[in-house]
Amino acid sequence: MSRSQGSRASSPASEGWIKATYALSLAAGESAESKAKTLAFEQTVELPPESVSEELVASVVGRVERLERGEGDRWLATLHFRSGLARGSFSQLMNLLYGNISLLSGVCLLEVEWPDDLLARFPGPRFGLEGLRDLCGVEARRPLTCAVSKPLGLSSRQLADLVGLLARAGIDIIKDDHSLVDQPTAPFRERVDLCQQAVEEANRSAGKSAVYFPSLGGRPRELLDNVGFLKERGCRGAVVIPFYLGLDTVAGLAAESDLALLAHPSGSGVLLDPEHGVAPGVYLGQVLRIAGCDAVIYPHAGGRFRMDEASASAIRSNLLGELGTLRPSAPAPGGSIETAALVEWLDIYGPDSVFVVGSSVARAEDPTAAAEELVSTVRDAFA
Amino acid sequence: MSRSQGSRASSPASEGWIKATYALSLAAGESAESKAKTLAFEQTVELPPESVSEELVASVVGRVERLERGEGDRWLATLHFRSGLARGSFSQLMNLLYGNISLLSGVCLLEVEWPDDLLARFPGPRFGLEGLRDLCGVEARRPLTCAVSKPLGLSSRQLADLVGLLARAGIDIIKDDHSLVDQPTAPFRERVDLCQQAVEEANRSAGKSAVYFPSLGGRPRELLDNVGFLKERGCRGAVVIPFYLGLDTVAGLAAESDLALLAHPSGSGVLLDPEHGVAPGVYLGQVLRIAGCDAVIYPHAGGRFRMDEASASAIRSNLLGELGTLRPSAPAPGGSIETAALVEWLDIYGPDSVFVVGSSVARAEDPTAAAEELVSTVRDAFA
Repeated sequence: MSRSQGSRASSPASEGWIKATYALSLAAGESAESKAKTLAFEQTVELPPESVSEELVASVVGRVERLERGEGDRWLATLHFRSGLARGSFSQLMNLLYGNISLLSGVCLLEVEWPDDLLARFPGPRFGLEGLRDLCGVEARRPLTCAVSKPLGLSSRQLADLVGLLARAGIDIIKDDHSLVDQPTAPFRERVDLCQQAVEEANRSAGKSAVYFPSLGGRPRELLDNVGFLKERGCRGAVVIPFYLGLDTVAGLAAESDLALLAHPSGSGVLLDPEHGVAPGVYLGQVLRIAGCDAVIYPHAGGRFRMDEASASAIRSNLLGELGTLRPSAPAPGGSIETAALVEWLDIYGPDSVFVVGSSVARAEDPTAAAEELVSTVRDAFA
Repeated sequence: MSRSQGSRASSPASEGWIKATYALSLAAGESAESKAKTLAFEQTVELPPESVSEELVASVVGRVERLERGEGDRWLATLHFRSGLARGSFSQLMNLLYGNISLLSGVCLLEVEWPDDLLARFPGPRFGLEGLRDLCGVEARRPLTCAVSKPLGLSSRQLADLVGLLARAGIDIIKDDHSLVDQPTAPFRERVDLCQQAVEEANRSAGKSAVYFPSLGGRPRELLDNVGFLKERGCRGAVVIPFYLGLDTVAGLAAESDLALLAHPSGSGVLLDPEHGVAPGVYLGQVLRIAGCDAVIYPHAGGRFRMDEASASAIRSNLLGELGTLRPSAPAPGGSIETAALVEWLDIYGPDSVFVVGSSVARAEDPTAAAEELVSTVRDAFA
């Protein structure tokens, strides 16, 4: 079944349509038509159809442009929303796409087509994959290596020593573990100072060009202060947790901070439920790119977290594929990539990736040897 | 089964313990012990146990203090985390309590005991229920009425007329629908200007003391500007969507803006899954209160959204109950409370509530009569 009902009023010239496809799982007695209609009204006017004027139905209510059977018992409903309903803020945009319906059940946002006028209102990646390569002084088209300064509980000095070791071993990006923000064991400014010094010293003495990305969090004013501090100290990027920090905060950092942003998926697992949530390819692959994340860490299929291959592949192709005039973001698979299995994964993921190797280096008996092996495996594979 | 393993190292004098109880659903072949241990490590050091030093295990790794059978096939695991691991930022705190484990499955954060030293680092409600009553000039211990200026698509003038009508009818709080932030049909500053004028005019001419809470969103710098604008115009509160805006942003507003914050649960439904997520009583009832929300809107049990009575009751008692020295937040049940059924609900929820009546007033043939009926029903019930 497929139908069109959107011919009455056309969109203002400057305004496009957000085309969102939802997978609907029906409860007993529920029809696909009524569920799709519920979405269209609940996500815009939040009123039952009978109490909305024809004028508002034509100008504001989502339009069910397509409704068809999907896999198994599911239905696919494609709704069109005017882009003006979600001008430049993510709380509006996400409220429109997945707001009150989050409080229902059996609704998964599977795919979104984003109109250019909407994309133009969001920052997108300032650096993107190519910009990250430039930051790390990498000219070859090869994957970047990313190792993690961890764990929580080490002192700033211990973490800085590890950062220095990883830089000397030839790692491109050394990031704070996302659990490190500001703890008594490693207070933010002390840690950043020591780790940034360590990476600069390693670069000088070993002829490397590693970059150190501290983990950043906090309330808006504190965050802006801390960005100022990172810039003063010469840091070129930061790790953020968009799910808890908020997408508008990330977009603000992308637009203003001139820091490369590496997004960590902590917390977002609840949003990625295939029955009721937002598909990983949409949230991690598109929304975070639109918000301005230059690289997005995601659980690789086959690691210790829940992720199927189709979803991992959708994240990757959405981060790299065409999306208005936005720069590609770097797909950064992580979550237990063992150095031993790396060659296989290098083959699957290809050169346009950031390989995040956290625990397998951090827990090695000889972290220098483990990091050097990672570095040489990656370089050899793309020599 | 129950065991204790936390006796080796004591906490620094100033540091308390966050006591978090998780409900675990086990996959085939998974044991409760190993799953609880996974949480303890994954949420702190993010390393497998064999590669963590004894010192870090004692000082940083979560402690499984209790593990026992729960309802059905589930297990209950109580973990203790040092409060210093999550000093003053929500991205840290939530990453500790529900970070990487969101990417696993079958883990629900059921209950949290918050130590005083942690609570002292977060703002909590600046107004709370009593402060809201004061803002609305309500001396009696009765529920506050809250009506919604909606829907999306109306012009600023049309919305202001509705705000004026609701104020004259005696409604206490008139809030923007959370879908309204900044749209071409009702741009933020124009709408706020007209609606605030309308409520002030209605208060003067009809001897009322209604307050108007605009919906607020955007990137940090824009948000701080908009807060300044609201204060200039005499607004005393705002509607926020913590799930998308970010908890640290909400905490920043609570600490600095001197605006009463009314939280809307849009988006948060994915977090509230009973199998894998954060229990409504924890997220809506405690986390949002700690972040400084003065009132929290939640789906009432029996409305159009998913919410069972036990969860609704936990939200309510957590918002009002003792929590360090934090002021009680106002429970604000909403989501299709029909005026006709109000008397019953008034009885169940009692005087310490904000009744959010959106669509049943907005869609009434005669909104003035519907609002006046709501107002008199509430006043009569608590005369």
